[in-house]
Amino acid sequence: MLKVFGHPMSTCTRKVLTVLAEKNAPHEFVLVDIMKGEHKQPAHLARQPYGVVPAIEDGELSLFESRAIIRYLDAKLPGVSLTPSNIVERARMDQWMLVEQCYFSGASMKISLQKLMSPNPDAEIMKAGRAGVVTALDEANQWLAKNTYFAGTHYSLADITWMPYVEYLFAAEAGDLITSREHVKGWWDRVSPRASWQKVTGRAK
Amino acid sequence: MLKVFGHPMSTCTRKVLTVLAEKNAPHEFVLVDIMKGEHKQPAHLARQPYGVVPAIEDGELSLFESRAIIRYLDAKLPGVSLTPSNIVERARMDQWMLVEQCYFSGASMKISLQKLMSPNPDAEIMKAGRAGVVTALDEANQWLAKNTYFAGTHYSLADITWMPYVEYLFAAEAGDLITSREHVKGWWDRVSPRASWQKVTGRAK
Repeated sequence: MLKVFGHPMSTCTRKVLTVLAEKNAPHEFVLVDIMKGEHKQPAHLARQPYGVVPAIEDGELSLFESRAIIRYLDAKLPGVSLTPSNIVERARMDQWMLVEQCYFSGASMKISLQKLMSPNPDAEIMKAGRAGVVTALDEANQWLAKNTYFAGTHYSLADITWMPYVEYLFAAEAGDLITSREHVKGWWDRVSPRASWQKVTGRAK
Repeated sequence: MLKVFGHPMSTCTRKVLTVLAEKNAPHEFVLVDIMKGEHKQPAHLARQPYGVVPAIEDGELSLFESRAIIRYLDAKLPGVSLTPSNIVERARMDQWMLVEQCYFSGASMKISLQKLMSPNPDAEIMKAGRAGVVTALDEANQWLAKNTYFAGTHYSLADITWMPYVEYLFAAEAGDLITSREHVKGWWDRVSPRASWQKVTGRAK
């Protein structure tokens, strides 16, 4: 049985769980309680030497890094494909996954972590976060004006990697960054009602 | 004709050029002179909104982010495949590409940029860089003790993403980080003589 080691509130764990939900794939979820520091303990470091979540075990294979895990699960598991077969759409998927990783999620999480986790949110850090997401969201808005999903016509791993950060922006009362951009909002209104996302965020079974 | 916009000394440009050299693929190289700030000028920002190199144009397709570009070129161009067909090896390739991106190249470039580019290298920054690469290099050393390449048996995009940073560690007189790890050194001795790398680094035509 496939084992997922992670935390249900972790953005990167949610990417993995969303892929599994899209595929209706049976798996065992093993909680790594990051609130108790379990991700820095030897049992987890043996799976993930950098001390972050998630990681998976699938038979002999032990694997970490959410963006590697979701590619593997999509390639291996039956069901809907989350990777376009067209190489240009696949290149778009890869590019938008990297934009999320390099130019969106870091700045976005500055806002969300301050607002949701800090007893005294630092306004300067949140301001830097807001400034940091502008280019990525403006580019996404232009792209999504002409395309249904990040890859183009195909709901893909790229949408799944963006979703956890957008979810937390709303929770952090920074949803205006999304709703002020018509086409990013339109995309969010298309992808967030998916059964997989409703399940991963605990709104549905 | 495929156009590559970049700089020959840029690590990310070198990843793209290495894939093209492995494939013997004809292309036009367009210099973006980062020493003159051309990567921050409107002509380049139209291709790459975050103002870094490289980017490519292939007919109608404009694409940036080296790790998306090399996946695209490998899928599209004829010649040797740089992506394993076995899904477990492919997962290893993806994981090691992400280890390079998240845990190796940033710290590694702290050393190289100080030593090679700064008129007054900051010893503290270089020390932090040396501390920052330890886990990734130790893990790589363990892995390469039992495997020929990062993906396993197959020379792949993962090897190509690591090589530019290792090259610069030697140039920055920090080659001991590599030579002190027997299996990382063994890997470097296997991959660096490849004709593609000799060409990209200007040692051969």
